[in-house]
Amino acid sequence: MLDLDGVRENVNIVIDNGYIIAVGDDTQGEEIDCSEFVVTPGFVNAHTHLGMIFLRGYYDDSNLHIWLSKMWEEERKALRETFRLSTEIGILEMMSYGITGFVDMYFNPEDVAEFSELYGIRAAAGMTFLNSINDPNQVERVQRSLKKSKFFIPIINVHSIYSTDEKTIILAKELAEELKTWIHIHLSETRKEIYDTKRKLGLFPVEYINKLGLTPYLHAVHLGWVSSWELEILKASRSTAHCPTSNMKLATAGAFPFYEAKELGINVTIGTDGPASNNSLDIIREMKEAVLLQRHSYWDTRIKALDVFTAATLNGYKLLGVKGGKIKPGYVADLALFDKYSLRPLAKDRLLSNIVYLSTGDYIKKTILNGKIYDKKELTQKIRTIYDRLESLMEKA
Amino acid sequence: MLDLDGVRENVNIVIDNGYIIAVGDDTQGEEIDCSEFVVTPGFVNAHTHLGMIFLRGYYDDSNLHIWLSKMWEEERKALRETFRLSTEIGILEMMSYGITGFVDMYFNPEDVAEFSELYGIRAAAGMTFLNSINDPNQVERVQRSLKKSKFFIPIINVHSIYSTDEKTIILAKELAEELKTWIHIHLSETRKEIYDTKRKLGLFPVEYINKLGLTPYLHAVHLGWVSSWELEILKASRSTAHCPTSNMKLATAGAFPFYEAKELGINVTIGTDGPASNNSLDIIREMKEAVLLQRHSYWDTRIKALDVFTAATLNGYKLLGVKGGKIKPGYVADLALFDKYSLRPLAKDRLLSNIVYLSTGDYIKKTILNGKIYDKKELTQKIRTIYDRLESLMEKA
Repeated sequence: MLDLDGVRENVNIVIDNGYIIAVGDDTQGEEIDCSEFVVTPGFVNAHTHLGMIFLRGYYDDSNLHIWLSKMWEEERKALRETFRLSTEIGILEMMSYGITGFVDMYFNPEDVAEFSELYGIRAAAGMTFLNSINDPNQVERVQRSLKKSKFFIPIINVHSIYSTDEKTIILAKELAEELKTWIHIHLSETRKEIYDTKRKLGLFPVEYINKLGLTPYLHAVHLGWVSSWELEILKASRSTAHCPTSNMKLATAGAFPFYEAKELGINVTIGTDGPASNNSLDIIREMKEAVLLQRHSYWDTRIKALDVFTAATLNGYKLLGVKGGKIKPGYVADLALFDKYSLRPLAKDRLLSNIVYLSTGDYIKKTILNGKIYDKKELTQKIRTIYDRLESLMEKA
Repeated sequence: MLDLDGVRENVNIVIDNGYIIAVGDDTQGEEIDCSEFVVTPGFVNAHTHLGMIFLRGYYDDSNLHIWLSKMWEEERKALRETFRLSTEIGILEMMSYGITGFVDMYFNPEDVAEFSELYGIRAAAGMTFLNSINDPNQVERVQRSLKKSKFFIPIINVHSIYSTDEKTIILAKELAEELKTWIHIHLSETRKEIYDTKRKLGLFPVEYINKLGLTPYLHAVHLGWVSSWELEILKASRSTAHCPTSNMKLATAGAFPFYEAKELGINVTIGTDGPASNNSLDIIREMKEAVLLQRHSYWDTRIKALDVFTAATLNGYKLLGVKGGKIKPGYVADLALFDKYSLRPLAKDRLLSNIVYLSTGDYIKKTILNGKIYDKKELTQKIRTIYDRLESLMEKA
């Protein structure tokens, strides 16, 4: 059954200083009329690469490894300003879809830090270790310069075990230890990664990462080809992220073992992945996709709307280390307001189904970030302006 | 490469009497300003059950066969007016998503006929043969009363080979022959259907249907478990429909062999299936889902945006027997107008990608049906009014 702290209709929520302080019928204070809306906690996009907006729709038609080489080629040529504008567009788009927190892996964490403070969106990001693109020492320097702030959490980004050498992975671990943060990495994504790792090192990817001591710091993303014994190892990890659309579009053919991970008590979150592989940043659509991929791959209907909803809200906040994901006093005032006339037939016991299976991020009309209300129309207008600048930059290139 | 007749930007389209009569820069006539839009042909939803809107979100969590028994239980109790209101909502929703034609299987074809004429949406529908719900003789009577009109095409609906007896299937074939129409049927949808048919009759589902002489009349839906030799038989069929979301949500675990069917020259279309199994009627989302399911299931990226776009436009019109699905003189003026500021970065060679992988039906702001323009806002308003009536009817029940 649906927890009442998850989806609310006809309720007053009192917010003070960024926190929910009361929920009920008889609350007092300044009122925002929510009679037209269904309210849920804000959503956390647990894996993305916002700086890739400029590559959205650029190249869609190959498997992950060929696709990556195409992306890296373009990224090496791109201007720093292109990344920056892409990131701002990405953040605004996500806000318009009810996303109130995210985890980013790219090459401009300073921009992410700045925009997260500007808009009040919770962001975890860092410079990314990726041997063919940058020098590990330089990544370390940027990393040490990043400061935790009200909305920004510096994390260590390691692209993958096939794109960074062992020395770099160990450096990443030491940094995570010293800076008291966590490690965000693509792991066990493709058959090729599994095969190559096993052949070269005699170990499966998670076994290898565990041997290097990374497990307690780990936010492991994809895991489409993780084995049952590796899942046991991941019980000691911080979190995992499932990105169904990107996996399917890039034909990785794997399916993250959602049910087993959940049963083991592993923190399961949901990510859209980047705008060049999804190509949408709509976390609402991603929740549905997770149910669909799970049901298709495991030939049963064990994964339900509530599982993906919890993954995209409560578990996302657990990952970020922020008390959020519930409509409850003491939780952060990060909320998504759905147009209730789109979630029909409107019956209390169908609300969650209509959110997950019927709606998209476009059904959300207002997003509340730490108590501050953003209107979809204003966000759309702002996105247009920045896209104009990005497009003119792209035309010049 | 994208055919220019598929997606157009900055173009003038002249419409007369429901047909496109000129496309270009220098056309003359009354002008509708489309500078804010990207134009595509209208979309055909090749398989749905609109009357099930009242069951949207009612029950989501079991495999097809258990789910069906739940649905039939509710359908036996439902009022005729519930089906009617559901159907009108479904049609208006589809129109708001750029759908200009559809194929419906339910129990109120008279309503479909009436609404299709009212709104100018092309509809193929008929009474449905389904032994546990209705009497075949009564279905035949209704069927004989349906008349082809400007927008409505009476077809023969057979629920499936497991829910209708052989005598009824033969009656359906004779009716199709006599009334010069086609047969719309769920076929090879689940492992159970394959197993039971083979065990009982010694034949696979398509082999059986072929033995009864139905192949030339066939619009076969689902085919998630069709074999390669049955696909050869289907070369002689009218059409097939792929409904990825519904198949995945109901854990049928099959994957329609899209690439092989296309290579054999079989007409492949796309359907959302009904609002109780998808639960959305958004054909734009369904195009993406088709790519995702294909890539995931066949471990390659052979199915591309253009394949699903063609299936949902040109092939849909081929199924309906209407000259549509292209922006070209002589074709029907059924068009979808996407807000171009949502399809970004806006570059000509990314338009199709952004339509299929980024957008949803909500990016469509106007739909043109046979030359008549419908605005999204007006449609949304109208949907609200009818939902109010449906919900009050549901509350009384």
